[in-house]
Amino acid sequence: MMNKIGKYEFVAEPFHCDFSGRMFLGHLGNQMLNAADFHSTDRGFGMKYLMTIKRSWVLSRLAIEMEEMPSQHERYTIETWVEGAMKFFTSRNFCVSDGNGKVYGYGRSIWAMIDTETRQPTDIYSIDQGAINNWIVDDNPCPIEKGGRVKMSGNAALVRTIDVNYNDIDINGHVNSVKYIEHVLDLWDIAWYREHRLKRFEIAYVAEAHEGEKLSFYREQTSENEYCVRLVKTETTGKETEVCRCMATFSPMNQSEA
Amino acid sequence: MMNKIGKYEFVAEPFHCDFSGRMFLGHLGNQMLNAADFHSTDRGFGMKYLMTIKRSWVLSRLAIEMEEMPSQHERYTIETWVEGAMKFFTSRNFCVSDGNGKVYGYGRSIWAMIDTETRQPTDIYSIDQGAINNWIVDDNPCPIEKGGRVKMSGNAALVRTIDVNYNDIDINGHVNSVKYIEHVLDLWDIAWYREHRLKRFEIAYVAEAHEGEKLSFYREQTSENEYCVRLVKTETTGKETEVCRCMATFSPMNQSEA
Repeated sequence: MMNKIGKYEFVAEPFHCDFSGRMFLGHLGNQMLNAADFHSTDRGFGMKYLMTIKRSWVLSRLAIEMEEMPSQHERYTIETWVEGAMKFFTSRNFCVSDGNGKVYGYGRSIWAMIDTETRQPTDIYSIDQGAINNWIVDDNPCPIEKGGRVKMSGNAALVRTIDVNYNDIDINGHVNSVKYIEHVLDLWDIAWYREHRLKRFEIAYVAEAHEGEKLSFYREQTSENEYCVRLVKTETTGKETEVCRCMATFSPMNQSEA
Repeated sequence: MMNKIGKYEFVAEPFHCDFSGRMFLGHLGNQMLNAADFHSTDRGFGMKYLMTIKRSWVLSRLAIEMEEMPSQHERYTIETWVEGAMKFFTSRNFCVSDGNGKVYGYGRSIWAMIDTETRQPTDIYSIDQGAINNWIVDDNPCPIEKGGRVKMSGNAALVRTIDVNYNDIDINGHVNSVKYIEHVLDLWDIAWYREHRLKRFEIAYVAEAHEGEKLSFYREQTSENEYCVRLVKTETTGKETEVCRCMATFSPMNQSEA
């Protein structure tokens, strides 16, 4: 029987690294989502199969916490496994390492399964007689906190508004999950990133944004080195809807890292 | 002796594909640049080695012409080789195929070698006693036109101005070559891409833009389905400089493709 934990190798490509030569968090998140796709496809519950039965996985939450980011040209490994499943949600974890015992960091994600016609949540256990249970790994630790509700006051300040463009949109017709991360992390400038390492990033997806809409970013500092950002889309009709909410936690860079 | 032509396999990742499920041109360009890096590294004139002797390759021009783009999850192969070398420039070509004889399209690129301290062009033949000559392939056709000078009148209209952000900047401290392509292709909306396939894209790099600067896009229609775009940066001092110039050629989509 196939191993319950999937293990995939990647390389930190030069253009996926920032000014400091460390991987952008968005690209790392993208590779986590690729690893999730490889893992589920190999085990019979991937997107391609689900499409044939009019189902799809939808990413609901993602939290990534890194002690260090892979550097340009470095090889790294993403391990991924299903930690648990309920009727409407599964939790999938990630471990990013150098493949030789050095751990860079971890990820946690929550996925819903939807009916692609009604866009409503569907019962995950209805797939292949609850086969998801065969893949649950309950003894592999993921030592980072679960994503919680991102609490924000009404006082977050509007800091930027951008247009949703062609390159933001994926095959589902809406802004891809990774693009939100990139746009949020663009709210800080390089001077900030020279002095602060992004330690943890958390995103909860609420609604979908589309091309032609505008995205507004409301940011609030919630504690020292911790910021929350609410993204609101403005439809062409003028209607405003929250699309996602993020929390970014930074560590001040110490002299040796800077 | 190592083959003069390098051959590398890739997969069209879901988040690197557009609303139609075809790869974004920017991501394909990125993989071409990765293939160039693999090829030159394997043959002793890669970026990593050049850094040790204070030299670097700088992309000067890139032209990509595609009959078809790889679709989501498809494997594709990029072959790359050096077509010719002069004192200050080399030309490197690309062929994108499915690895089984079906060609998707081609690329042509021109590279300069600079001294990383003076930022001035340096003699490519000074590296390892003109070793580049050992790698020239003069009998492999690349049946697309070379990039020429992109001619524009003074009448191009300012169509967009954006900020250069954290995610635009690579380890060299300036906007990465692929990001310009993405920003330019964002000038057209999905309604346009539903009816027009991007057949050829050409970009000539002139100067480097940095974080905190603004990029303005001046667009001009130069013939039916052909557009030229000039990118101008505005520095924090207000100084304006052309950074690159692009030409995009579209084909109207026929019924079966649309």
